[in-house]
Amino acid sequence: MNTRLEQDSIGTKEVPETAYYGIHTVRAVENFPITGVSLSHFPDLVRALAMVKLAAARANTELGALDAERAKWIGSACRDLIAGKKHDAFVVDMIQGGAGTSTNMNANEVIANLAAEKAGRPLGGYDYIHPNDHVNRSQSTNDVYPTAIRLAVLFKCHRLIEEQRLLLAAFSAKAEAFSDIRKVGRTQLQDAVPMTVGREFASFAAALTEEITRLEDLSKVLRVVNLGGTAIGTGINTPAGYAEVAVRHLSAISGQDLRCARDLVDASSNMGALVSFSGLLRRVAIKISKICNDLRLLNSGPRAGIGEIVLPAVQAGSSIMPGKVNPVIPEVVSQVAYQVIGNDVTITMAAEAGQLQLNAMEPVIAYNLLESMRMLENAMKTLRVRCVDGIQADRERCEDLFASSLVLATALVPELGYETSAKVAKEAQASHRSIKSVVVEAGLMTSAAFQDTIEKSFEHL
Amino acid sequence: MNTRLEQDSIGTKEVPETAYYGIHTVRAVENFPITGVSLSHFPDLVRALAMVKLAAARANTELGALDAERAKWIGSACRDLIAGKKHDAFVVDMIQGGAGTSTNMNANEVIANLAAEKAGRPLGGYDYIHPNDHVNRSQSTNDVYPTAIRLAVLFKCHRLIEEQRLLLAAFSAKAEAFSDIRKVGRTQLQDAVPMTVGREFASFAAALTEEITRLEDLSKVLRVVNLGGTAIGTGINTPAGYAEVAVRHLSAISGQDLRCARDLVDASSNMGALVSFSGLLRRVAIKISKICNDLRLLNSGPRAGIGEIVLPAVQAGSSIMPGKVNPVIPEVVSQVAYQVIGNDVTITMAAEAGQLQLNAMEPVIAYNLLESMRMLENAMKTLRVRCVDGIQADRERCEDLFASSLVLATALVPELGYETSAKVAKEAQASHRSIKSVVVEAGLMTSAAFQDTIEKSFEHL
Amino acid sequence: MNTRLEQDSIGTKEVPETAYYGIHTVRAVENFPITGVSLSHFPDLVRALAMVKLAAARANTELGALDAERAKWIGSACRDLIAGKKHDAFVVDMIQGGAGTSTNMNANEVIANLAAEKAGRPLGGYDYIHPNDHVNRSQSTNDVYPTAIRLAVLFKCHRLIEEQRLLLAAFSAKAEAFSDIRKVGRTQLQDAVPMTVGREFASFAAALTEEITRLEDLSKVLRVVNLGGTAIGTGINTPAGYAEVAVRHLSAISGQDLRCARDLVDASSNMGALVSFSGLLRRVAIKISKICNDLRLLNSGPRAGIGEIVLPAVQAGSSIMPGKVNPVIPEVVSQVAYQVIGNDVTITMAAEAGQLQLNAMEPVIAYNLLESMRMLENAMKTLRVRCVDGIQADRERCEDLFASSLVLATALVPELGYETSAKVAKEAQASHRSIKSVVVEAGLMTSAAFQDTIEKSFEHL
Amino acid sequence: MNTRLEQDSIGTKEVPETAYYGIHTVRAVENFPITGVSLSHFPDLVRALAMVKLAAARANTELGALDAERAKWIGSACRDLIAGKKHDAFVVDMIQGGAGTSTNMNANEVIANLAAEKAGRPLGGYDYIHPNDHVNRSQSTNDVYPTAIRLAVLFKCHRLIEEQRLLLAAFSAKAEAFSDIRKVGRTQLQDAVPMTVGREFASFAAALTEEITRLEDLSKVLRVVNLGGTAIGTGINTPAGYAEVAVRHLSAISGQDLRCARDLVDASSNMGALVSFSGLLRRVAIKISKICNDLRLLNSGPRAGIGEIVLPAVQAGSSIMPGKVNPVIPEVVSQVAYQVIGNDVTITMAAEAGQLQLNAMEPVIAYNLLESMRMLENAMKTLRVRCVDGIQADRERCEDLFASSLVLATALVPELGYETSAKVAKEAQASHRSIKSVVVEAGLMTSAAFQDTIEKSFEHL
Repeated sequence: MNTRLEQDSIGTKEVPETAYYGIHTVRAVENFPITGVSLSHFPDLVRALAMVKLAAARANTELGALDAERAKWIGSACRDLIAGKKHDAFVVDMIQGGAGTSTNMNANEVIANLAAEKAGRPLGGYDYIHPNDHVNRSQSTNDVYPTAIRLAVLFKCHRLIEEQRLLLAAFSAKAEAFSDIRKVGRTQLQDAVPMTVGREFASFAAALTEEITRLEDLSKVLRVVNLGGTAIGTGINTPAGYAEVAVRHLSAISGQDLRCARDLVDASSNMGALVSFSGLLRRVAIKISKICNDLRLLNSGPRAGIGEIVLPAVQAGSSIMPGKVNPVIPEVVSQVAYQVIGNDVTITMAAEAGQLQLNAMEPVIAYNLLESMRMLENAMKTLRVRCVDGIQADRERCEDLFASSLVLATALVPELGYETSAKVAKEAQASHRSIKSVVVEAGLMTSAAFQDTIEKSFEHL
Repeated sequence: MNTRLEQDSIGTKEVPETAYYGIHTVRAVENFPITGVSLSHFPDLVRALAMVKLAAARANTELGALDAERAKWIGSACRDLIAGKKHDAFVVDMIQGGAGTSTNMNANEVIANLAAEKAGRPLGGYDYIHPNDHVNRSQSTNDVYPTAIRLAVLFKCHRLIEEQRLLLAAFSAKAEAFSDIRKVGRTQLQDAVPMTVGREFASFAAALTEEITRLEDLSKVLRVVNLGGTAIGTGINTPAGYAEVAVRHLSAISGQDLRCARDLVDASSNMGALVSFSGLLRRVAIKISKICNDLRLLNSGPRAGIGEIVLPAVQAGSSIMPGKVNPVIPEVVSQVAYQVIGNDVTITMAAEAGQLQLNAMEPVIAYNLLESMRMLENAMKTLRVRCVDGIQADRERCEDLFASSLVLATALVPELGYETSAKVAKEAQASHRSIKSVVVEAGLMTSAAFQDTIEKSFEHL
Repeated sequence: MNTRLEQDSIGTKEVPETAYYGIHTVRAVENFPITGVSLSHFPDLVRALAMVKLAAARANTELGALDAERAKWIGSACRDLIAGKKHDAFVVDMIQGGAGTSTNMNANEVIANLAAEKAGRPLGGYDYIHPNDHVNRSQSTNDVYPTAIRLAVLFKCHRLIEEQRLLLAAFSAKAEAFSDIRKVGRTQLQDAVPMTVGREFASFAAALTEEITRLEDLSKVLRVVNLGGTAIGTGINTPAGYAEVAVRHLSAISGQDLRCARDLVDASSNMGALVSFSGLLRRVAIKISKICNDLRLLNSGPRAGIGEIVLPAVQAGSSIMPGKVNPVIPEVVSQVAYQVIGNDVTITMAAEAGQLQLNAMEPVIAYNLLESMRMLENAMKTLRVRCVDGIQADRERCEDLFASSLVLATALVPELGYETSAKVAKEAQASHRSIKSVVVEAGLMTSAAFQDTIEKSFEHL
Repeated sequence: MNTRLEQDSIGTKEVPETAYYGIHTVRAVENFPITGVSLSHFPDLVRALAMVKLAAARANTELGALDAERAKWIGSACRDLIAGKKHDAFVVDMIQGGAGTSTNMNANEVIANLAAEKAGRPLGGYDYIHPNDHVNRSQSTNDVYPTAIRLAVLFKCHRLIEEQRLLLAAFSAKAEAFSDIRKVGRTQLQDAVPMTVGREFASFAAALTEEITRLEDLSKVLRVVNLGGTAIGTGINTPAGYAEVAVRHLSAISGQDLRCARDLVDASSNMGALVSFSGLLRRVAIKISKICNDLRLLNSGPRAGIGEIVLPAVQAGSSIMPGKVNPVIPEVVSQVAYQVIGNDVTITMAAEAGQLQLNAMEPVIAYNLLESMRMLENAMKTLRVRCVDGIQADRERCEDLFASSLVLATALVPELGYETSAKVAKEAQASHRSIKSVVVEAGLMTSAAFQDTIEKSFEHL
């Protein structure tokens, strides 16, 4: 492989001749052979970085800190990246030391070289467009990196919400389809009170609806950025008024309504918004895992379980047990949930490890957040397409279990009082009879009155 | 000890003759000898339970489901509990099986007996006022317990916010007092750029200000309750319109602007709001621990560390090292933070363990939430009173370190460019000289121009 | 309250006149109003501290660093504490700053005063027996506290193991009682292959047996102590040979076969053994929670669930649903498991927060370890006495479910091959028939051959 | 792309014509688009699977359950995989539903087709060698998957230990190199007692030495496998004596001294060994992160920090601050530690989620374990090569800080008593003098006696 020689304050390094990245990136690749997952695996992040650089270039030009011609070439390079080109030049590992400096420098170098190329100059010669002096002008990793992370999370968040909407619609459709199938409602795995399969699925949809509201609420907090703070929020080396102008440009470029953080020193090291967002992903994960656990319980059987619903068979279940069909989709979704929850602990520890004016551990926070969002999005889609859409309710089974159950005892309380109703339930269980037969035979209610009471118990549902 | 005999569907039990609780409570005490921390340790929770019972009694009376006389005695009993009386009758362990049934029954029994006593009837004779049929009328643990937990959290939240306000005021006072002391700002434990001690403390205050905003935002979510849902959100055994009326009464009684959940079935098992709240406590914990870590770093020494600030000496530091003074208050606060974070994991697991129409693990969620809030409140007060209020800055040390540091190199970049500035810094470090002397001797800037540049670097702070 | 005045390097303080503790303890109580749980709540820890002090006094005397008379009084005071007396003088909060200094000083002061009293001298006059110069001689919190924690954990560990043995015996007894009840074995909540109820309970016992082995193995690691290391493991201010002599005495006093750590500097800040032990408690918690989840699944119903076993009814299940009986004991045990797991995360974070020659966060580690052990011990006892001992199997239900299930298909594979067996299972499920009838009617096997195959499938169990 | 048609009990599917995998694998790829990380990313796992299949084929042949010719072709296919060939046919996602069935079937299909090809038969025609009937003979995913995971972990463990040995050797080399540099030892970030830089580095080496011992100890537990248990540990469909024979062959093939689990039913669902191993990885992570935190503290500065050591500069530190060099390697290692700790929580939750006779969540456990090991191995190598090997101590700085510090006060205690020593320290601090000058001027000791006492304080180190 042909190489060119580049130099920095540490020394010199060979860089692949045609690479858009430069010496800092090469060092970072050598220093951080950690996960094998490079920045380019998260196109949202690369696009967000390019948007920040474009906004900075425009703000610098507007405030006289960068000449129009250089700004033009830099802008053109940024737009290429925003359009999804050259992402393969983002080769640094997502987990890296240095609070994101290597990510920022990877972006600075790629943009500098791409801009240079557009300006008809050779790669690696930074005399006309310099990664630090021009591309990074009025910026520091301390403000570029946190801002780009927030943008990338916002981009992913839109898709996550969209996928969640589709999933809740799938549950709602089932709620409608199963609305007249009566069944035993259960608490603590014990038969409790009458309900319907439709109502059960409607509650899954309701749970997801609330998650979407929470995600939208929290997105507002993510829109507060520290761009313009440069090193530790001092705004050092920025022209007067830079922060407001840069954030205005970034809002326009990204289509996100961004705001400047009030205290830029605090904002430089403050991981609060990312921690909250991770906490919210965890909450979504808990909710979805709980729903999947329910689907598996309701589908248990086929003969020696609850068996009220039938999940679609998406693969043969066992290498040794013929005919077995397993609830593999809900199982994989719960596993994703556990991963998201574990990632949240990683984020917590990294957030707590911030020191003085910076949190050096931000890369592992960014990586885990973006990874959790990607997995959740995948999991929700798989859950919808390969499971929920195909769920069938076993009406006969539901109604049989309901009729033979003791859950009707609760409905008798207003009529018979708690203690008599408890005796009825106990007697029915002991004598293997139904609630109805015990009540009617004991002369506590007529058959018709009993039936009325049952119907009334569905009224509030 | 004299006893009376009570009976339930399981059998009979001796109850202390003068106890306000009854047989269910006695069984629960025997069944759950877990933490030794009883309900009475959380007066906010006992008060919240009594408020729910009072609201239910009023709604029942209003809707014709309870006669005025019984309602009067029940109401009077509830008001006693709200006023802080008889809390010692809440003897069940905070961690209990049964999704809070034992908590609800402890309340039902205490209120029934207290009401009976007021009505001139004997303890333990439930024929006139029955724990289930009257005190618990139109209610289920499924709605009473989650509603009471939310109320208790809201009550504690007000005090937590108040304590946080006082703490941030203490940091703000220090920010003002130290506003003109220049110092080295640090990222990644490396000397970075110029700042002031005041600015550093102001950022601590800013961090806490944001936490308060988040807590207030989230309080709104906690104000959505499922009262009226009774068993699994079906509203079974409630008179028509009960939920709205009961929530209206509870709002008036508690002074909290509560709302009915839209989907009561979902709301019965949905731990989302509690998980979010715990996530927020964790966020506060992370923030406070980070600040405490910073205080310890800045106070390190007294001679072989950073030593920019001096924490007040609140105890002799060591059993063997005379004269040593340790930063014990920030240390204990970080430990509280770790406890809150661990409790948050407990809550996460318990929330994920919900099944079908209920989460049986809610008691461990409630316990950890309330405990975390109590500890955080204590920790913030201790931090303020025994540490922050007494912090002094060592002006001489700060200014010496600043003057001899290399952080001025960054301020030179707009003038000299990144690469020349880097060479200056390197040369200064290698030759044990100051940035200023290298720059001036090399003829890169005059002494006056250098000084101007330094002053400019403080402009944005 | 009458007080006496004491003095330390910070200043003077009033101490209750009859208190055995002194000024350092008073300060610590004021500084750390965190959990409300004082040292005296963990008698094992108080005893362990006294044993360490006694061992130190003996070693000092043996090596000429303490005169025999003072040693006698100190020893007598220590023996009182070991015997369980005066524990109420240990009033400092379990969570405290200062790496345990306040715990060590609470012990030093109580022992000094108790010894003084025995020597006929007044409380609070430390001229004859001084907390630091005599009781703490040749010691530092850096070695006393970690050593005492390990001892306390070892003491509690014995009882935890004992409780676990009783629990596994209870499961074994059920395994025997249910050994001939055939049932459906389940994987992924799907009917899988034939097994027996006895075999299922035997596997619970087997799981616990392994946990005991692991606990015993790890106890050995806990027996390595850093006593004699004094400040940061330097052994500063100890007479030659002290560490070995002190550990020898401590082994004799405690009945534990203790060993000196090889590298005392490392051992002073190394939380590894405690982290491992917490990890093991977590493992026990996971195992017990899994078993409890299984008990709840198998007990689900009574009519619309699996219902293979019946847990004993220990309380009425619901405040609104008469006759409902809930699995409250397994529920509370799982909640304890979540608490232990959360505590383990707290311990992890605290362990990671060690800095340089010490981990200042050790108190929160100690507190969580001891608390987890206490709760696990309580939970296991409750599980045994109030649940496992009273479990009954519903033989009829088990055998009905088994006979009608499709799990026999697997047993046919060696005879018919995987694909044919799968077709049989599918056909049986579609036509609501049994495996046997499909196989026999299709002429694939005779009825007798089928029965033989079934019997064979139980052979390896 | 040309395809062939394959069939299973669900229906038919197109499979790429030249693919070694089959229909089950195709379905699994469609069902689990979760992480994008396929089985082939973990060659140790693929090799382990092939070893299990080879061992099973040999055991089956030995016991007459498989003819020699088929066994020959199957064996040859397995040996190819063990040699690292055809791993790209393992395309299923690491996180998958179904407790590893898709992993097992991916292996069964690849081996069946590879064997068929060797036998001169077409891919996808399973009449001669069938994935289930021949490759999977006497096996179930329930025993194959857990056994293969344990083997893969053991293989990775050897390399992890080796990397740890190299790292500790690097620390030991530094310990020797710095053995005579005196410095301030610190507890709670406060100057404490005298020590040497060498001793500090030796303690890092000691910490790692202990971790290796623990890893080796725990490896023994991982060597207990459930091979032969087949479905849920019943051993169903295995010839008599199969388990012992199969494990014997697997020991020989893998070079690992494996043993059969005593209770195969328990072993099928028991995640204990994996949880323990993850707990140990977490412990290693904590230890390494603590060491890295220390390196960053000791390297803080260069001028306004501790500055006792100098980490090698591996990249320019900042995009805006020229000349800044950051401790990026320790930073990235701590991030890896947080990831390992988060992964451990994921594993905990997955382990707790096991139900009845199986843990369906085992894939996410396996993925996180193997990923954590890979990252730790990478991190330790990077730490050694790019950081520890190049660390220099700043002797002058260390000795200056030591001489001017107050840490000598402790050494005076045996001579002067705790209270007098404390007064000396306080006086020195207040008057900005050294301990020595205060002691000598106050006539408490001669200069020579003082010097002797200092020397003595290094004796035990």
